[in-house]
Amino acid sequence: MYGLIGKMLAVPGQRAALADILLEGLKEMPGCLSYIVAEDLTDADALWVTEVWETAELHQASLGLPAVQAAISKGRSLIAGFGERYETRPLGGHGLARRAESLIGGE
Amino acid sequence: MYGLIGKMLAVPGQRAALADILLEGLKEMPGCLSYIVAEDLTDADALWVTEVWETAELHQASLGLPAVQAAISKGRSLIAGFGERYETRPLGGHGLARRAESLIGGE
Repeated sequence: MYGLIGKMLAVPGQRAALADILLEGLKEMPGCLSYIVAEDLTDADALWVTEVWETAELHQASLGLPAVQAAISKGRSLIAGFGERYETRPLGGHGLARRAESLIGGE
Repeated sequence: MYGLIGKMLAVPGQRAALADILLEGLKEMPGCLSYIVAEDLTDADALWVTEVWETAELHQASLGLPAVQAAISKGRSLIAGFGERYETRPLGGHGLARRAESLIGGE
């Protein structure tokens, strides 16, 4: 599995709108086992996106999906910048979508 | 929802053993919607634990569960320290265990 933990900085006042775009764009991405959008509790403009993918390649491929491309276009102007970004190798846990479920959802 | 993103530093050579303890200790925690243990790709001793809970109170309560207490006892000597720690308010996403599922599992 491949994981990403990343901080995204919204244009002031646009964090909620940016979060909505991120959440609506992410349905049915092949290989996506977890994708969570969260507000930072100390910085009113910051979001954290934590992701788990079956492989780094499937994550990369998702960037070409129409729904994801649409979200990027829509959200781009609401992003002021990016903060920390950590790549990981998830070992397991609770709350990871079943692989069959994620692949079927993406067909 | 309440979220945590935290870096844990294992005693050198003990990361895999620590990860095992973290993963075995976490079954059936009431209110836990996601709990993922991952290796950092740049630091051979570092783990990232990302969690989503229904409430901060349920997360706090989990620390008193027998299985969690046992994991803490077992794992304590394998932990060299802690790194970054971010508290968040998760807004939603894919891969969050259904609430009913998490509560039933915890009974």
